[in-house]
Parts: sequence; structure tokens; C-alpha cells
Amino acid sequence: MLSTAKVFRERLAADACLIGVGAYDALSARLVQAHGFDALWISSFCVSATRGLPDAGILTLTELLHTTEQLLEAAELPAIVDCDNGYGEVAQLRRAIRSLERVGAAAISIEDSAFPKRSSLYSIPGRRLIPTEQFTAKIRIAKEAQRSTDFAIIARTEALVAGLGVAEALERAARYADAGADLILIHSVTRDTFSDVVSIAGSGSLSKPLVIVPTTSWQFSVDDLREAGFKLIIYANQQLRAAAKAMEAVMIALTASGRIDPVACPLASVDEINQLVGYSEFQRLEERHRLLCAPVPSNGGKKSLKRAANG
Amino acid sequence: MLSTAKVFRERLAADACLIGVGAYDALSARLVQAHGFDALWISSFCVSATRGLPDAGILTLTELLHTTEQLLEAAELPAIVDCDNGYGEVAQLRRAIRSLERVGAAAISIEDSAFPKRSSLYSIPGRRLIPTEQFTAKIRIAKEAQRSTDFAIIARTEALVAGLGVAEALERAARYADAGADLILIHSVTRDTFSDVVSIAGSGSLSKPLVIVPTTSWQFSVDDLREAGFKLIIYANQQLRAAAKAMEAVMIALTASGRIDPVACPLASVDEINQLVGYSEFQRLEERHRLLCAPVPSNGGKKSLKRAANG
Amino acid sequence: MLSTAKVFRERLAADACLIGVGAYDALSARLVQAHGFDALWISSFCVSATRGLPDAGILTLTELLHTTEQLLEAAELPAIVDCDNGYGEVAQLRRAIRSLERVGAAAISIEDSAFPKRSSLYSIPGRRLIPTEQFTAKIRIAKEAQRSTDFAIIARTEALVAGLGVAEALERAARYADAGADLILIHSVTRDTFSDVVSIAGSGSLSKPLVIVPTTSWQFSVDDLREAGFKLIIYANQQLRAAAKAMEAVMIALTASGRIDPVACPLASVDEINQLVGYSEFQRLEERHRLLCAPVPSNGGKKSLKRAANG
Amino acid sequence: MLSTAKVFRERLAADACLIGVGAYDALSARLVQAHGFDALWISSFCVSATRGLPDAGILTLTELLHTTEQLLEAAELPAIVDCDNGYGEVAQLRRAIRSLERVGAAAISIEDSAFPKRSSLYSIPGRRLIPTEQFTAKIRIAKEAQRSTDFAIIARTEALVAGLGVAEALERAARYADAGADLILIHSVTRDTFSDVVSIAGSGSLSKPLVIVPTTSWQFSVDDLREAGFKLIIYANQQLRAAAKAMEAVMIALTASGRIDPVACPLASVDEINQLVGYSEFQRLEERHRLLCAPVPSNGGKKSLKRAANG
Repeated sequence: MLSTAKVFRERLAADACLIGVGAYDALSARLVQAHGFDALWISSFCVSATRGLPDAGILTLTELLHTTEQLLEAAELPAIVDCDNGYGEVAQLRRAIRSLERVGAAAISIEDSAFPKRSSLYSIPGRRLIPTEQFTAKIRIAKEAQRSTDFAIIARTEALVAGLGVAEALERAARYADAGADLILIHSVTRDTFSDVVSIAGSGSLSKPLVIVPTTSWQFSVDDLREAGFKLIIYANQQLRAAAKAMEAVMIALTASGRIDPVACPLASVDEINQLVGYSEFQRLEERHRLLCAPVPSNGGKKSLKRAANG
Repeated sequence: MLSTAKVFRERLAADACLIGVGAYDALSARLVQAHGFDALWISSFCVSATRGLPDAGILTLTELLHTTEQLLEAAELPAIVDCDNGYGEVAQLRRAIRSLERVGAAAISIEDSAFPKRSSLYSIPGRRLIPTEQFTAKIRIAKEAQRSTDFAIIARTEALVAGLGVAEALERAARYADAGADLILIHSVTRDTFSDVVSIAGSGSLSKPLVIVPTTSWQFSVDDLREAGFKLIIYANQQLRAAAKAMEAVMIALTASGRIDPVACPLASVDEINQLVGYSEFQRLEERHRLLCAPVPSNGGKKSLKRAANG
Repeated sequence: MLSTAKVFRERLAADACLIGVGAYDALSARLVQAHGFDALWISSFCVSATRGLPDAGILTLTELLHTTEQLLEAAELPAIVDCDNGYGEVAQLRRAIRSLERVGAAAISIEDSAFPKRSSLYSIPGRRLIPTEQFTAKIRIAKEAQRSTDFAIIARTEALVAGLGVAEALERAARYADAGADLILIHSVTRDTFSDVVSIAGSGSLSKPLVIVPTTSWQFSVDDLREAGFKLIIYANQQLRAAAKAMEAVMIALTASGRIDPVACPLASVDEINQLVGYSEFQRLEERHRLLCAPVPSNGGKKSLKRAANG
Repeated sequence: MLSTAKVFRERLAADACLIGVGAYDALSARLVQAHGFDALWISSFCVSATRGLPDAGILTLTELLHTTEQLLEAAELPAIVDCDNGYGEVAQLRRAIRSLERVGAAAISIEDSAFPKRSSLYSIPGRRLIPTEQFTAKIRIAKEAQRSTDFAIIARTEALVAGLGVAEALERAARYADAGADLILIHSVTRDTFSDVVSIAGSGSLSKPLVIVPTTSWQFSVDDLREAGFKLIIYANQQLRAAAKAMEAVMIALTASGRIDPVACPLASVDEINQLVGYSEFQRLEERHRLLCAPVPSNGGKKSLKRAANG
């Protein structure tokens, strides 16, 4: 069986533009797979939210690991795991990589923000990055830590988010690429900086495939971003945000009317959930078992013993 | 601090009609709390689905326990945990109760279906129940296992789901009440049997509070069910089903248009997610810490030492 | 049922000298209980070791939490959890306290070493502490975070380990006591500093009960330490170290002789393990269940229904 | 990197006689590796004991899985996981195999005892096996479930333990081999039946490698068993039993003398524990990081950017 890390690598090498979608439980992961997208993005923002935690370095590596396992049990897709600024120092980073690789993740992303991590989505005055040398050291440690050559490391710079400008972002991106990062993500959260990143992609000045996360600049379509030169587009948290909105609507409806009318509140049917969780595959497995349990002719055992003895 | 088990008991004793809503992660749990409902229902159907599992006794007790902890970290509400037919034999049942009670669950539900468990929502020809004596034995073991007197056991009979009729359902319900069950749930999944249950509630013939799960008979409102005499109404899986539908819509939109337009696909904003996960409480905590770290007058330490020495 | 936190508090208030023993799995915890000691000490050194990790802030809070649950499932004793320097910033510390309290821990210990944590047992040149004000702020946040008034916080200073001298240790201890710490642990790892701590205990200058960990100064007996004035003595890691030595002996014997002779390598018998894990209690539970399942007279159900209807 | 499943297969194919040793935490696993044994045996008896549970089907698959991960994080050895009678029906068995394979287990063992599982080490009157056809069906489902061709399934028959005699044991063993089991374990717990198994091994009548577990017949040495024809010898629980005995000795000594004298109670030193958990590797990693963080010449970044642009 081809590892998903190998699949991910080969498709990148074939110069495809891949689409990763944020998933945080088996249902969201199955939907990503059912709709034919290329990879799961396991976002610290989303996984933290399902634990009731702000995206601020509170989620533990163990929680992230268990969620990754839960998703990989549900979907056979390359999983890219958002590891923030690396879950601590280098020993923690190495542990994160080895643990995630062991359970089948295809890639991780690490970013150059200073510890403690704060979500790019939070407005933090004076947001700080760690010095370039420290982050290239982290990248090298990360590359040395991985066991399979297929496992990929995405280096993400928060230079634009921190207001350090395009030159600094580009400098960091190049240094991270040199240090061994397999893909580069120059993150941006405003319209202007997003356009800067699109320009960088178009310039072709970086030696490694570029990743983009169009959360706030949703007007850019997949085609726009592919043409701009990005090789991996991440829809990081839209499934979670759609789910939250829909659940809120259910709560509002129940409060207002004392019932949950499935027309007013669109609900997946129980059968649709069953399909998502593989109920029919479960039934086929049980049927297969019933067939296998059917009694064999009474001489079956003896024959096989003889065969074994002769074998 | 009052335990949620005590809160749950006291409100039942006060003859309130409580509303429990199915939650399966912190966001869904926080929404139940934010909208003022009374209890979390931790449904095996929902929790299994988030793991990509059919609701057929595959989810482990450990997974159910960790989900319960995740929800109780997020919301301070009584949690009622759906324990299927008890996670095995009596040793497993006792372990389930003690583990769930230890982490703060207020109640569990156990049902009289035969092992292996199959969801009431699945059409299973020849669905079987265990003999009444066996289930009353389970109830007694369960009541002996709990540590706090406040913890509640809901006995759920699948007699109507299995087509055994009202008389058998009523007989079992009465026997389960006698055996010590704190609440009774006569489950039903068709319109006709739901009406039977409503009649039973109206007759007042059972000595314990009745629970109802109006999944398929959504036309009955909270007021209808309260007036019928139910003391606990469970909206078991609507949040999950709304979430799945909304996430599917996002996947469809992305496939169709190459973008996720937040108008076409209603999404909670990042700020709304932040509010749900308590980001402002987190900021207040950090601010409180900054204030506490402000340097004290230089003689502070000495003074406190003297005080300590005198104390 | 009295919480173990309350038991722990009341016994301390009664001026007893309690003995806590390091446990890291159910067997070690059951042995602490079987031999009548007062509390479990859940040591980060030991729990890290069972995960193959150095004691350097790599173990996650989730791992510590799950180990705590595993121990509290096995033994009904107050559990004191070694939380190093608090698992990060204040949000992480608050989460640690609430999570551990939720699963039934009675107390935690936090120390004033600088992040990243390094075991007191490691010789680290230039070991640093955080400023006193920062640690008193942490203690206040910790005290505000706990839900039950019984939960106890042990403040541990590494001043002597860091070579800062008795005056600094005493100053910090007094300030930590003032900030609300319930017990004080002035840690020491050399013979000389251990004697310093014994003198401090004897001076009675601190307003809170003193804790001692005689790992390296094993010659001081329980009686010596009780008389010196300590209220809690912790044997932190001896069970683990005895286990490792004995397992190594088994590996050496197997290598040398190709067999494991139970005389040369003392082994607990299977029956002894069964006793430790409560096999007879399990058998009694099964027997109780068999009795409860015995069929009742055929009119039993009807009678109980009538009773229910009359009730 | 070669998978441990492949290593295990290739060494079996090379007709080696391998030695597996029961491990239940990182320390025991590291000792197995440090002393050069070939495989980890993850015993349900041992893992249950570390959770305070009798070996009676109470441990959950999740607990077994997490322990397996903990061991595979610590030791790079083939892990053979004792899955009792398969953790339920076929859906659970398939889940067990896929989950364990995903985290890197090399093999599992499943046995033909009837549900609920009871340890072979317990004397159970009337111990029952499931019909041969049912177990061969399980084996076929198991073989279909595995993803990698290297993963191995050990079929274990309890025929001798249940008193069904050598002919039945042999018949079952042959049928299990025919059904696709990769190795066969004819379990025995008495001296007489152990001798029977040794005779079977000598007869060479089975087509698959034979496994032996000399728990009670410890007098047979590795050489004896290799010469008898076994290909895998499992020392299932001796490390755990040695650990329990040694920890009990510590508790007794502390009770008796009020101290833990490291001469009377042999304890691994802290340094020995550090060595087992890889403290020096951790130090080397930190040193490597320090070197990598050293500032590069100021033109380093520009150069690399140019290189990138040219690349």
C-alpha cells in the first residue's frame, strides 16, 4: 500500500495544484474525501475549538495526535498537521514529528512565530517572530527527525502577519527553503498582504512549492490561485465555521419554536450520516462473516491437516 | 460547588421538565449551554459518527469517556451519557459508571437490547431484547456501582422498537423502576409507537420520571411533551446532523465554484468561534496575570516573612 | 462519599505527618494503598520515564491527566500531582488544575524553575528560577482556578537546587505561603542542603505545612522527618527504580541462562498480581450478577406494575 | 526505513528462532531492546494489570492501542499485540487490526476462546471455545483487514487449556493455518500439556511457524525450545511480575524501617533511569540545536535568496 506521504509527494512533484481542506473529526474528514479533495488539513484553530480552547498553544500534542489518528481512521488521504510553532523546544518538535509520522500523517506545518503561539487570526499588537537562524535550525532538526524520506515539512512565515513587509517575508522564505523545508507558506490575513503573496507566487523566485490559505480573501478562486503558481491551497476552517453556524441555527429554532423542524433547519438524515460513517460497509463485513462461518464439509479439517503435513 | 448530578436531581425533584441536547464536541456543548438548555446528552450515535463508526457497539468506553471529559471541560451542565447496553458484562458496566462518575457525568442511560448493540435508528429484523430479569439485574448492579447518591441511571427499554407492544414495554418499564432506575425511557422510532409513549406518560402509571427522545416525531413541541407529562426531553442528534449538512454544502460550493462564498455558505465568523471557545476569558486571565506580576515594594518579601514568622 | 481532597486537608489540619509514595501505574498505586500509606505522588520524572521521556517538560498535560485517571481508578487515595512549572503559561496552568481536579486529584505541586523545566535530578549549570513576583502570581492564579476549597496547592522552590542559598529559599517560601500556597516544599538534592531544609522545618518559621522529598538523603527516617516538623514526606520514585532494577535482572538472567528461574529472579506469582488487580472482587461481582439474574416468580412483574401504579 | 513488520517476517522466513518479551511501558520495552531480544509482546494480562483490571476482556481497544503507541515510541522492535478473542465481533476485530497496524504494530495474536474472554491463567470450570468454523472465519476476516502484506496474524488455540486434548488442538491448529494464520500458538498452562506442545513442534506436522509461551514451564530453556522446533518464544509477563515483587519489597521496607535503604532494596539509580529514557540523546539534540542556531554570516540570507532565484 502506497503511503499517503508518498502520494502527496508524487503529486506535488508532478506539479499538480492540490487542495487541502480543514477537518477536525471523522465526519468532516469523510466529507473532504467524498468530495474528492486531495488532503486533510488538521488545523490547530479547529482542533482547539472542538476542545473549547482558544488557538493559543493550549491544545496538547497528545490531543492533536489523537485527533489525527481519528481522522486517519476515517479517511485515506494525506494529512497535513498544523503544529503551530512546534509544541515547544526541539525535543518536543522531534517528538511531534515522530509521533505524527508514526500514525500516518503525510506532512506538518511549523511557523516562525515566537512562543507562546497566538493564532494568526488574533490581532496581537507587537506580534513577534523568532530570529531567522533559530527557525532554520528548527527546520533542520525537523528534517533530521523524520523517518521516511516522503514526509514533508511546510515552513510557514508569519512575517506579513507581523507587519515586517514583503522583503523580510521573502528573505525568510528563501532561507527556510534552503534549510530544507519542502513547501513554503507565506501567511497573510489582510487583502493587501494576500495580494503580495500572490505576486510572490507569480515571480517564481522561490525554489520550493508555495502554499496559500485564502481564509479572508475568499474571492480568489482555486483557478486564480493555481494560475498564480500555488501548489497547495488550504481551506483551513470553513467546515468548522459552517457547522457552528448551522448548530446555532438549530439551538435558536428550538428556543423559538420548541421544536426542530427539519425543513427550517436543514439536517442530514440519519441515513446520510450512516453513509458517511460507512454503515453499508459494516453490513457487508457482517454478511461476509456469516458466509465464512457456514459449516464446511466434515472432512475439511482432516484434509487440511494432511495437506499441512505434506507441505 | 454543587455537583451537576445534584443540580440535575434537584431540578427533577422540583418537577421541572428538563431539556437535554446532544453534544459531541466543545462547540456543540457550548451552544447547548449558551442557549440555556438544561443538560448535555452524549449520544453513542453522535460520538460514534465523529469517529467514523456505525452506532453498533464499536466505539470504546475509553473514547466515550474522553469525549465526556472534553464536553465537561467546555460546559458546566449535567451530562447524561448514553451507554448503550452497558459496554459488555457487569464488570464493564461498573467500570463505565465509575469512570464516567469520576469525571463528572451526572447520569447514564442503559438499554435492554441484546449484545451486540445496534442503533435504534437501524432497521434490524428480529431485533432482540435481553430477558427482563437480566436487565433488572444490570440496573441493580449499576445502582450499587455508583459512588454518589446523586448520580442517576436512566433505564431505556427498546420493547416498542423491537415490536413487542405496549404491554411488554409497560411491564418492563415498571420492573426497571422497581429495580432502582431513576428515570425511564420507553424508546420509540415510529409515529404510532411515539403516540403510545405519549399515552403512557399521560396515564401516570409509572413511579419514575419519564424521558422522551422526539427524533422522528419532531412535530411534538416541548410544550406538548411537557404537558404530556415527560420530565426530560432529549434532542439527541440534531446538532450533529445540522453540522453535517452545512459542511456538505461547503464542500459542494467549493467544488462548484472554486471558492467558499460566506454569503452562499453561512459561516460563523472567526470572532464568533472565539466567543464560543472563551477567547475573551482567556484574555482576561492573561491581563489578570500581568497585574499580579507587577513588582511589589521592595520590602514586601521581608514583611511577609515576618508575618509568616509571627503567624 | 468524602472527596480525597477533603480527606487530605482534614488529616493535614489534624497535624498528622502524612506519607506519599510515587506511583505511576495501577500496580504501584495499589501497593501504596495496600501498605497503608496516605497519598499517591504522581511524579513527572516517573510518568515521563514510563513514556520513555526525559523529565524535561516533554510529557504532555494530557498524558499526565490520563495517568492520574488510571491511578485514581485503581486506588482511593489522595493524589498529589507533580505539575512541574505549570505546563506553560497561566492558561495552561488553569487548565491543568481544572482538569486534574475534575478527575479527582487532591493536590498539585508547582515549582519556581524557569521554563523549560529540567528535573531537579539533572545537574544543570546556571539553573534559573523565575522572579518571586512571577511565581506568586502563578500561585494566586492557581488558587483562583480551583473549584473546590479542599483542593491544595503545593508551592515548591528550587532555590537550594539552584544554589541561591537558605535566605533566598526562606524568603521565597514565605512569599509563596503568603500568596496562598497550602503547603511548601523547599527542594534539595544534596546532603548539605537537605540538612538546611531540616533546620528550616525545625525553626517553625513558616506558616504553612512543609513537605520533604528524601530521595538522596534516604538515611533520614520517617520518624526523623516527622520529628523535624515535616507534615508530608514524599518517596517520589523508589517504586519505579526498584521495578527497573528487577526487570533488568530478569533480562540479564534470560540472556545468561536462557530461562527465567523464579527463584533466582523473584517474581510475583500470577495469583499475587490477580490479588493486586482485584480479581476476587471481580468474581464476587459476577456471582452477585448471577444471583440477581435468577428468575423471579412469574407474577413478579405484574405485582411491581401494580405497586408502581399505586405509588 | 524498513517496517518492523517486514523485519519480523524476514527473520521468521530465515528460519530464525525469535524471542519476544512482554513489555507494558517504555521502561520495560527499552529493557527488551537494550538486552537484544527480538520483539515486544504486548500482553493483555500485563496491560490490564497496569490499569488495575483483571484479564477478562475489560481493557478497551483504545487502552491497548495507546499502550502500543507508548511502547513503539520507546523501542524500535516488532510489536506483537495480544488481542484476546478479537475485541468483539468482526467489525471490532477489523478496527483493532487496522488501528494497531496504523501505529506500527508488526503482528497480533487472536485466540479461539468464547466471548467474554477469560485469562488462560484463570482456572475456569467449563472453559469454552468457539466452533472451529467461527474462528477460521475470524482469521480470514483478519487477513482481509490488514493493509500491509507484512503484518502477521498469530492464531492461538486454547484447546489444551480447555481440556479438549491433543487431537482437537492439532485439528484446530491445522485449520487455522489453512485459513491463513501466519503463526500458530497452541497454548498450554500445565506441565503435561506443555510437553504435548513440545511433541507437536517436534513432529513438524504444521505448515506454519509455531509459537510457545513458557510461563509455567520455565525449566525449558531457549535452547530446548529452539531445538524442539519453535520459531517464536514469548516471555509474556515476567518483567511485570518482577517489578511488582520489587515494588512490594520497597513498600515492606519502608513500613518496617521508615526508610528505603538502596542496599537492602536494589534500586536503579537516577542515572540508570536517565540512560533508559534516552537523556543523553536528548542532550545531544539540544547541543545540535545550539550549534544550528549560531548566527550565520550576514550575507548568508541574500546568497541563499539568489541561489533560490536561480534554482
